[in-house]
Amino acid sequence: MNLLLLSPDDLINPQQAKIAGRQLQHIQQIYNSNVGDTLNIGLINGNMGNGTISYLGADHVIIDDIQLNTPPPPKLPITLLLALPRPKMLRRVFQTIATMGVSKLILINSYKVEKSFWQTPFLTTENITQQLLLGLEQAKDTVFPEVQFKKRFKPFVEDELPILCQSSQNYIAHLGDYLPCPSLPNQPITLAIGPEGGWIDYEVNKLTHLGFTPIQLGQRILRVETAVTALLTKLYY
Amino acid sequence: MNLLLLSPDDLINPQQAKIAGRQLQHIQQIYNSNVGDTLNIGLINGNMGNGTISYLGADHVIIDDIQLNTPPPPKLPITLLLALPRPKMLRRVFQTIATMGVSKLILINSYKVEKSFWQTPFLTTENITQQLLLGLEQAKDTVFPEVQFKKRFKPFVEDELPILCQSSQNYIAHLGDYLPCPSLPNQPITLAIGPEGGWIDYEVNKLTHLGFTPIQLGQRILRVETAVTALLTKLYY
Repeated sequence: MNLLLLSPDDLINPQQAKIAGRQLQHIQQIYNSNVGDTLNIGLINGNMGNGTISYLGADHVIIDDIQLNTPPPPKLPITLLLALPRPKMLRRVFQTIATMGVSKLILINSYKVEKSFWQTPFLTTENITQQLLLGLEQAKDTVFPEVQFKKRFKPFVEDELPILCQSSQNYIAHLGDYLPCPSLPNQPITLAIGPEGGWIDYEVNKLTHLGFTPIQLGQRILRVETAVTALLTKLYY
Repeated sequence: MNLLLLSPDDLINPQQAKIAGRQLQHIQQIYNSNVGDTLNIGLINGNMGNGTISYLGADHVIIDDIQLNTPPPPKLPITLLLALPRPKMLRRVFQTIATMGVSKLILINSYKVEKSFWQTPFLTTENITQQLLLGLEQAKDTVFPEVQFKKRFKPFVEDELPILCQSSQNYIAHLGDYLPCPSLPNQPITLAIGPEGGWIDYEVNKLTHLGFTPIQLGQRILRVETAVTALLTKLYY
């Protein structure tokens, strides 16, 4: 947690906040903070700055003199179409895309996504929000990425994707003898990343028909979370 | 597991292997394989190829007709000096550096590394080997990275590092107004990556004195595993 990210509910007034729960624990146990210490503060979807601990108890901490004058870092202008990863990967994927600065994540179905993955409790709004929050607090960012689900591949690709991707450069990450992933800082991009077992030909064909260009990162097969980080880095960093 | 990585002990003869334990479970439960199926096979520190399941039982699987004619992918010519991450990060870091193709990892001490981190059971040879194996099986590689520990920063940097880094380009990843991380495919590099709280000035000065150039990846603060992936991608991919 490099930033204490506050929700409007945490504010007593614009200069004062009362915090409990996980963030209190972190302030006590990881920061080892004391009264008088200054903390990096951000307001969800707002500015960043700092505040000073004026009270630190077992139940809550009070932060005073909150000044929020720094805008959050810019987002990457990317829409990530990600085949739903297996549940144990999901939490880290949400954290990673928030930390790296993705604007929009669309979790989509794919032939090699097991149906049971869509039932995981990690996909509740509450759990997703919690993981995105951790990712933003890591990066020092305040703005949540948008997250959507599309549980049916064909209707999404045929009916929604053509409009969604019409003003971006569009790529599909795929193993094989394709163009190396380019570097395109500041360009709006829609990038499709497949499931563990990869895309099937039908899916690649549907996306290339829409103008998605297959790209690759070399012969090593990366875990989904590593692939997401590597592709975002190559495109934007 | 995209490659079944065999140790010499698994071989009954050069064309036949007997496998039990985790790899057997994976073949049964994730691959759902049957007798007659072909598997991607590699021999630790050797070639890659395939083999055919000739027996599949509750206790073990027999793989026949093993042909290993493909060399493993080249390693990245990098020595990573990584401040020891907190234990819960370690397993994924070992997997990631093996998957990405790092040649040599040196875990070093740093002011902000908690002393207790050095006591974790994740640092036993057996546990490290297991995580590196998982990373190699993910990537389809057979060659283990070399892993070393240096528990004292100053003697390592003063006495050993000058020789170790004399024929590489040398960088220290650090937050701040530094050179963006360059792209240097195929170049021998020694790269130092700090702990969660970052390097202290003393450490940065010691390394820059040795000719390490500070580099950065932007203002977002990345988790250690994400930073490792992003820096390796930027340098080599």
